[in-house]
Amino acid sequence: MLHDALSQIAADVDAEFDRLLALPGDARDPLYAAMRHAAIGGGKRLRPLLVTATAALFHVDRDVALRVGTAVEAIHVYSLIHDDLPCMDDDDMRRGKPTVHRAFGEATAVLAGDSLHALAFEILASSRTHTDPFIRSELIATLALASGPDGMAGGQMMDLEAEKKSFDLPTVTRLQALKTGALIAASVEMGAILGHIPPEGRAHLKGYARDIGLAFQIADDILDVEGDPELAGKALQKDADAGKGTFVSLMGLDRAKQQAAMLVAQANEHLASYGSEADLLRAIANYITERDR
Amino acid sequence: MLHDALSQIAADVDAEFDRLLALPGDARDPLYAAMRHAAIGGGKRLRPLLVTATAALFHVDRDVALRVGTAVEAIHVYSLIHDDLPCMDDDDMRRGKPTVHRAFGEATAVLAGDSLHALAFEILASSRTHTDPFIRSELIATLALASGPDGMAGGQMMDLEAEKKSFDLPTVTRLQALKTGALIAASVEMGAILGHIPPEGRAHLKGYARDIGLAFQIADDILDVEGDPELAGKALQKDADAGKGTFVSLMGLDRAKQQAAMLVAQANEHLASYGSEADLLRAIANYITERDR
Repeated sequence: MLHDALSQIAADVDAEFDRLLALPGDARDPLYAAMRHAAIGGGKRLRPLLVTATAALFHVDRDVALRVGTAVEAIHVYSLIHDDLPCMDDDDMRRGKPTVHRAFGEATAVLAGDSLHALAFEILASSRTHTDPFIRSELIATLALASGPDGMAGGQMMDLEAEKKSFDLPTVTRLQALKTGALIAASVEMGAILGHIPPEGRAHLKGYARDIGLAFQIADDILDVEGDPELAGKALQKDADAGKGTFVSLMGLDRAKQQAAMLVAQANEHLASYGSEADLLRAIANYITERDR
Repeated sequence: MLHDALSQIAADVDAEFDRLLALPGDARDPLYAAMRHAAIGGGKRLRPLLVTATAALFHVDRDVALRVGTAVEAIHVYSLIHDDLPCMDDDDMRRGKPTVHRAFGEATAVLAGDSLHALAFEILASSRTHTDPFIRSELIATLALASGPDGMAGGQMMDLEAEKKSFDLPTVTRLQALKTGALIAASVEMGAILGHIPPEGRAHLKGYARDIGLAFQIADDILDVEGDPELAGKALQKDADAGKGTFVSLMGLDRAKQQAAMLVAQANEHLASYGSEADLLRAIANYITERDR
């Protein structure tokens, strides 16, 4: 089931970006080409899958959820482009391809990230995405908070500081909750918003999202040590080389694996009130620690 | 009247950013400090003034218009931070202070820009900014379109290309309509949206905005040649040195001045159906070609 769902969402998100990012046929073509290079073909599309799988619990039209998931993915892709820049992580490869600044130059990479950032909110504000302006507004507020200085961008700032200071486990946990957890949690929450679930009804789903978000990052730190750069499509062991505290360096490999498994079990418990309709969310939780890239 | 309005909006926008960007007291402090450095103290605040002055035509609560204007200014400030980066214009001074990357490093500058970008949409999506979700959604759609690849970011891409190709006058006009015109036009349009003016009722105001946006850029090109870097608070004559086509290089100084004056007159004609309540918008149009920075 998960395998099919992953293939389907990958094809659908690619098709959405292909439609959204048609070359305008003027001097902006290199910008659109750079956006396409980063956004189309590659990536697990975990965040769009979380949006559509959560929305499916509440029988939301899949096309609507797909457009919302594409907006979240646009934010994720913009963050990867900026994160790979020479002044940030200085990475040459991403998803098995040259990074945007390697292929198109740094200035175009900055603008391609900024453009995907704006595109995410353009998608969510459009009445073609969702007819109810209240829902649109709630989706936008959730995504802006999760990606800004009190979410993803704030976590990236802490990550920069981590090169200079040695953070303890609670601080690394907080860093990762912001850097990757916030957007993963927002994906699930946006699925619930599409399902018209009020904030007080989202507690279990938010618990699920928090747990898989943290498990995802612990698994990433494990893959950084044990993974195959060929399969990952990017350089590994960069954090350890930079002397940054990771879950593996702070807990050891064995305890990190136990912790990830415990979090996945806890994530699944948050879904106890749902029947088989939540099986895809359960499969996603299990996949997070079992993936090889 | 204009002098007071400019002082007032500068103080009010500073106060808004001061409130929005309180240091969190953790490892994200350098990020917030960089955002404050760029956003507080300095700048003409032309875009927030256009939002509040247009909204005032329709008796919109000034506090509401101010928050919306602050969101537009957050986009403008983010674009300046990224535009000043070494890989873009490589500027050392902005608004009489070191640029963000000079004061805080490149990586923090990228994240500070990204964070102000997200903050703009966070402000607009908040029910504290405006109670009507339909209005919020329309404001967000307008700002995202004006700042993304079909607006400001697209214009910046054309500007990068302008270093390699020599653009003719129609192409430079199109470049500037995107790069600076789109956000100026959005400021006026967002004031009209706050006033519940439907799209078909915004034609005159959009015409006004289009004309002052182009006049603003011609005046910038004239200041680039005739201005005082001390007063401007930034380096001048960079475009001419880079061999980029400007309105002055393509039209000559005299014709550029005539063209700017003609556009200001035309902008004022678009306001003919308004009485004295549009005097501030008229004063802004006149100021655009008379300013010394």
